[in-house]
Amino acid sequence: MKIVIIGGVAAGTSAAAKARRNSETAQIIIFDADRDVSYSGCGLPYYIGTAIEERGQLVPRDAQFFKQKYNVDVFTGHRVLAIAPQSKTLTVENLASGEQFSESYDKLIIATGAQAVRPPLAGSDQANVFHLRNVASADHIRGQVLERQPQTAVIIGSGFIGLEMAENLTARGLRVSVVELAAHVMPALDADMAGYVADCLRQQGVAVIAGDAVARLEGAPLVSKAVLASGRELAADLVILAAGVRPDVELARRAGVALGPTGAIQVNERMETNIADIYACGDCAESYSLLTGKPFYRPLGSTANKMGRIAGDQASGGDLTFRGGLGTGIFKLFDLAVGQTGLTEKEAGREGYEAVVCHIIKPDKPEYYHGQELVIKAVADRASGRVLGAQVIGKAGVDKRLDVLVTAITFGAKAEDLFHLDLAYAPPFATTKDPVMYAGMVLTNALARQRELITAAELDARLDRGEAVQVIDARAAGQYAAGHVAGARNLPHERMRDELAALDPAALTVTYCNKGVTGNAAQNILINRGFRQVLNLSGGYKQYAQQKKQQDGEDGRA
Amino acid sequence: MKIVIIGGVAAGTSAAAKARRNSETAQIIIFDADRDVSYSGCGLPYYIGTAIEERGQLVPRDAQFFKQKYNVDVFTGHRVLAIAPQSKTLTVENLASGEQFSESYDKLIIATGAQAVRPPLAGSDQANVFHLRNVASADHIRGQVLERQPQTAVIIGSGFIGLEMAENLTARGLRVSVVELAAHVMPALDADMAGYVADCLRQQGVAVIAGDAVARLEGAPLVSKAVLASGRELAADLVILAAGVRPDVELARRAGVALGPTGAIQVNERMETNIADIYACGDCAESYSLLTGKPFYRPLGSTANKMGRIAGDQASGGDLTFRGGLGTGIFKLFDLAVGQTGLTEKEAGREGYEAVVCHIIKPDKPEYYHGQELVIKAVADRASGRVLGAQVIGKAGVDKRLDVLVTAITFGAKAEDLFHLDLAYAPPFATTKDPVMYAGMVLTNALARQRELITAAELDARLDRGEAVQVIDARAAGQYAAGHVAGARNLPHERMRDELAALDPAALTVTYCNKGVTGNAAQNILINRGFRQVLNLSGGYKQYAQQKKQQDGEDGRA
Repeated sequence: MKIVIIGGVAAGTSAAAKARRNSETAQIIIFDADRDVSYSGCGLPYYIGTAIEERGQLVPRDAQFFKQKYNVDVFTGHRVLAIAPQSKTLTVENLASGEQFSESYDKLIIATGAQAVRPPLAGSDQANVFHLRNVASADHIRGQVLERQPQTAVIIGSGFIGLEMAENLTARGLRVSVVELAAHVMPALDADMAGYVADCLRQQGVAVIAGDAVARLEGAPLVSKAVLASGRELAADLVILAAGVRPDVELARRAGVALGPTGAIQVNERMETNIADIYACGDCAESYSLLTGKPFYRPLGSTANKMGRIAGDQASGGDLTFRGGLGTGIFKLFDLAVGQTGLTEKEAGREGYEAVVCHIIKPDKPEYYHGQELVIKAVADRASGRVLGAQVIGKAGVDKRLDVLVTAITFGAKAEDLFHLDLAYAPPFATTKDPVMYAGMVLTNALARQRELITAAELDARLDRGEAVQVIDARAAGQYAAGHVAGARNLPHERMRDELAALDPAALTVTYCNKGVTGNAAQNILINRGFRQVLNLSGGYKQYAQQKKQQDGEDGRA
Repeated sequence: MKIVIIGGVAAGTSAAAKARRNSETAQIIIFDADRDVSYSGCGLPYYIGTAIEERGQLVPRDAQFFKQKYNVDVFTGHRVLAIAPQSKTLTVENLASGEQFSESYDKLIIATGAQAVRPPLAGSDQANVFHLRNVASADHIRGQVLERQPQTAVIIGSGFIGLEMAENLTARGLRVSVVELAAHVMPALDADMAGYVADCLRQQGVAVIAGDAVARLEGAPLVSKAVLASGRELAADLVILAAGVRPDVELARRAGVALGPTGAIQVNERMETNIADIYACGDCAESYSLLTGKPFYRPLGSTANKMGRIAGDQASGGDLTFRGGLGTGIFKLFDLAVGQTGLTEKEAGREGYEAVVCHIIKPDKPEYYHGQELVIKAVADRASGRVLGAQVIGKAGVDKRLDVLVTAITFGAKAEDLFHLDLAYAPPFATTKDPVMYAGMVLTNALARQRELITAAELDARLDRGEAVQVIDARAAGQYAAGHVAGARNLPHERMRDELAALDPAALTVTYCNKGVTGNAAQNILINRGFRQVLNLSGGYKQYAQQKKQQDGEDGRA
């Protein structure tokens, strides 16, 4: 039994290690065109920045390690040029010597990964324009930052690689601009959550330009500025193209391996392609959503690792299968953690769900124990009550809440289940009721107890359309005076019970406070006193103001 | 509708708030003998220590707050002397004036909490011997620490209140001894995990004495030393009795309210007692295990809050019910976090499960991103594969792993489900495969793939019985030389494939490395080469040495 693996980063090496655990006798070979294998792609931005100092920390394993530990033969600097499924052979080129040879396989695992999307952009072939994709490209960027000491950088794209680069280049002292084609940065998030990301970038001195594109790069012999479609010009001693990645499928496609609707290699739950004895895994392969059952493409290190392990198990006689993913992602942005799992509000709508959403703004720990505020936007399906997704942003405890929600969603949790979780409580770790439990409570109250919510976006849309809405600001007079929803009437919660006569119980009413809790208390009073329809503003004035600020399109550099 | 609540800490105030949210018209009254209500009992040790400076941070709400915010009448300093269920009346004493009066109710919620267990101990009535139960008792301890400046403290009991006090008194500069009657500190944990707790205490200069008891306290007018049953004497300028709590059920019992097998008030899932219109919740009430379905007593702030909310909902017409708990607990101990949920190995055995356990020793994040080691001991049921419980100890990321496991266990997760969780990965937050996933992988390999584990305790027991065990130390020679299992043969993993001839494939074989991973690799080689029965030492030599050290009963003071 000879198992040949093309690609030796996350998925390929996971496959090799698992196959060896199952079988002592199989011959296992990895080919990779790169000189580095088994590195942490997700660590690359931190290697360019300051957090990871040594290259060896990123690339702790080499061919010798795999030989000793796993009895796996790793050939770096070897490109597979062609796959011949009929004869079960590969054509391989030794890049150093130029020699080409043929290699047979019994089982083939394709783990060719992904490539950076390269938009056709004038000037993008200059020596100070980079993609970040492997350790060598990180070396180049790091080298240039250290040697040429660029002062300014333009990052094209604001997915998490782009934003991690924004952080790490800022840490190196560069003035950074991020340009995003979509209407807001971090397009994978809903607009109302992406606002926190944009705020954070601006606070750290990063210029944020959304809804615009880089039309061309100018300067010679090196790029010195980026000219945007809007005509705006940005100084650019360094340009990072971070407009996403696409699966590296050319080799597979030419061999007749079928691609899925996402353009990545189509695989079943056993990581099998359409061709017998050929598997695919990692960033070149398609996965599918646990929630919708539909194929999706999520090139993430965690998913690649998982798929690789499954492919290696299957190729060596095991029965491990892939169960679908949630597209969970998290990244650090300066002092903020930003995470997402499952469906956003936008995606849920696109998938045909009637989405019910809440914004929970709570400290991660008690305030007396230095708790710091985090925001959970949770999305539920009105019909089934199931939790569909969550976005979590804050300075501490974000990854915990996200992983609890990931786990709950994986098991098909309904919103009402979250309150009942017996989560770990002590003041150094959480509040008595965890923010995740609040998310469940608020969604359940909306779904089953007529405590309906309205988002800032929807309230604004209704007001813009000229609908008659009785908006009640339930905060103290001073808070109201400092800023409020246009047209809102100030009726502090404490006085509400006594001053109901001033309100119209038949009108569509929206209550709000700072973050949502007192707005809900006001909503309760009005509903219990017979008001016809009362909605609480999700996330309160804090979320509303956040939305307004983004609409105004502030820019830290302007 | 008049809802009367006895007790105004976690459960009582949660009940009041929830009842008010449901009903604007109900009259809601709280009586509490204490002068403080709605405080964080779990924050008390940190108030005595240094983390919480102001009393007001612990007790942010008073009667006026509840009147304004919830229209709830709170009577502090009012003790309920008797409940008359037939007439639905209470006899109440105003402790300040001595006046007694009668109060009627439509619905009664008993939330009388718990009292410290007071062992009959000579000298325990002296003025420098304390229980920690409410804010007033914390004031006394804090006052004494500040004014009398005691140099030494003895803490009787090593549950989490005792250990939190050990930390906080150490932070105040006292030399602290902890005395535990059971064979190891933190008896709620398995012995092999409690060892990490004992280690931490000793490293911080706390004397740890387990398997001994304080026989008497000596000194007058203040206690100055504790004399143990063993005859050992400990200097004690201050004594904290932290031998646990018991439910405060006397008032309820006298009124005919039935108690459950745990001695706490018996309630159904609606928090109803055996008497119509009387509910109980919080630390005076029994809850039940989600895993076994059996009643248990878990006086925890998080559970009290939950039960209170349910009681308040039910008393005001809602339909929220209690779904059982896992007894999840966590506490901070100096730089360590220690958490537990579900069943320990010991408890699982007692409940009749055949427990399969693993010890996962992994960094919480990549080592290149300053990851710090944590230990997960996970327990699964061999018959069903279900995860029954987990204990997690480490310096960072403990609460996250615990809460993920809590959530998984709540939904009935099997060990094999953990690998498939799409947990959030990025270097600042986790490793590509999270430690929780490793726990699932290792347990699944044991349950379904013949990669059986053996605990350090079981290996020692077999060796002590003189069983023939071929023990293979798969580490490098230098590591072996620095310490190894008695009788183990050193055969480094890299050489194993070549030197198999030296081993007996028919013998019962145990492999190990430092933490378990290479031990498993060695196990795989031997199994794949036809060895009859090969077990991997769970947690490797690290866990084994930990166990040995505890058996030797080191004491930081000795």
